[in-house]
Amino acid sequence: MLPSWRPGATRDAVVGFLDAALDLPADHRVACLDNDGTLWCERPSYVQFDFLAHALAGATTVDPALRERPELAAVLDRDLVAIEDLGIERVALALIGLFTGHSPEEYTAAVQAFLERARNPLLDRPLVRCTYQPMLELLDELRRRSFTVAIVTGGGVEFVRAISQQLYGVPPELVVGTAIDYETGRDHAGNIVLRRTGSVSGGAVEGAAKVASIQAHLGRRPVLAAGNSAGDREMLEWALAPGRPSLALLVDHDDAEREFAYESVAATVADAEPIVDVGRRAGFTVVSMANDWDTVFTGPT
Amino acid sequence: MLPSWRPGATRDAVVGFLDAALDLPADHRVACLDNDGTLWCERPSYVQFDFLAHALAGATTVDPALRERPELAAVLDRDLVAIEDLGIERVALALIGLFTGHSPEEYTAAVQAFLERARNPLLDRPLVRCTYQPMLELLDELRRRSFTVAIVTGGGVEFVRAISQQLYGVPPELVVGTAIDYETGRDHAGNIVLRRTGSVSGGAVEGAAKVASIQAHLGRRPVLAAGNSAGDREMLEWALAPGRPSLALLVDHDDAEREFAYESVAATVADAEPIVDVGRRAGFTVVSMANDWDTVFTGPT
Repeated sequence: MLPSWRPGATRDAVVGFLDAALDLPADHRVACLDNDGTLWCERPSYVQFDFLAHALAGATTVDPALRERPELAAVLDRDLVAIEDLGIERVALALIGLFTGHSPEEYTAAVQAFLERARNPLLDRPLVRCTYQPMLELLDELRRRSFTVAIVTGGGVEFVRAISQQLYGVPPELVVGTAIDYETGRDHAGNIVLRRTGSVSGGAVEGAAKVASIQAHLGRRPVLAAGNSAGDREMLEWALAPGRPSLALLVDHDDAEREFAYESVAATVADAEPIVDVGRRAGFTVVSMANDWDTVFTGPT
Repeated sequence: MLPSWRPGATRDAVVGFLDAALDLPADHRVACLDNDGTLWCERPSYVQFDFLAHALAGATTVDPALRERPELAAVLDRDLVAIEDLGIERVALALIGLFTGHSPEEYTAAVQAFLERARNPLLDRPLVRCTYQPMLELLDELRRRSFTVAIVTGGGVEFVRAISQQLYGVPPELVVGTAIDYETGRDHAGNIVLRRTGSVSGGAVEGAAKVASIQAHLGRRPVLAAGNSAGDREMLEWALAPGRPSLALLVDHDDAEREFAYESVAATVADAEPIVDVGRRAGFTVVSMANDWDTVFTGPT
């Protein structure tokens, strides 16, 4: 069990939870896992950002006028300062707008076509093999114990759904994430059509919104949550509850050698502090990528 | 198979679809079924309305001042004319507001406690045994064929989730419906708490909104849809698509003897017309409760 996890306190906590979970009623066995930085690599850039930048580059060859929009020019130039100045939300909306009017099937096909070829430039691996092997093993163990395994992402729900079954064995309806609004209408033959709009439905699924979205979408409270950033904090706290087995896993990116070393900072009453410190205080099980994982990635590069 | 369905064209269409569906890839096997009037009886009143009226009666014994609100007085008096005059939406919001500040668990417990005792006064049966036996048999056959079976209801999603596993074998995350917004906060000990608000999130899930909600929530297009009213029309049309097996079932309440006889009217380009007529033209399979079902209800009364 969990062959890529090194023996030690972290693995013991995970195994201890898996054993204890067998005492839970089946309908309490719910696990909610963040995606970016928790199930797969989010550096040097979010995969969804790479996808949108790629789509933008393609669209610009057809319509060079797109470059006149400052949000899109900043992305085409990979100008991080300009992106920061414009505001990430405004830039994200401009990119999402590239798919306005597309059907869900068209969007999914575009994501899948991109991921068939795209690579992580620093890890020098295909993006679809930048998933963390120890976490894939954990997903399998959870399912073996009849857990309902859901992904709860701040990223676009349709983006993650396009690959969730293939990469994680998670069906689309068990992906919760930031959603765009859809518009329904009829085509000239009178058939119902469903089209993406450019507006985000109900805001980004980060922080406390992850807790509310889990309730809205899944209708059950998780007993296991996993994340890696300040945006996962409330979800992890929500999973921990007295009187029943529970586990809050926080992946610490402390492995500059095999992956990346970086910190996520949370706002606390005292001050801004690393989520790892906040998490330790809150009872999270911190997973040191460098120390707790024997293997990070697998498969041909 | 389907012992409560009488031999005939309708049963043949259902069985033909179930056979053909075996040729579909597993991830295309998605079924979306309306609840009120499709899986269980919605007359003489919606079960959720009965629940809210019951909760209101209880709340009024504690706080008689509730009667001063015209929306609530109309419900307490079962004054259908006053409810119509005030507008069903306004009355519904006033009733939903009775649970503002409650946790999801408290709300679920209240629904379950109500349904343990509540009866349908005209059928003289417990409400939990006012489900349609032929539809329960269909749910079982779909699951036997590895379908993902979802309920898509205009009713409150949390209300249906409270009973979906017990009555239909459908887990909470596969119930799509009208949702209220949640509010997250912290209690005095710093623990995350989740509370119902009095506002509806994104409008009622009826008509075209059923199609958009299926995409948003399930991320897959159904190949079977079942409904009984004009509010199900778009969902049923959406399930029918050329080039693959599909089935749109429309339950026709034409059985005054064993259940009720009533019509749902849809707005069409021509004029308002019964959904049964609209459906026949659109290729729906109309289920005559009187003719196609051998048994409607089962279990002790």
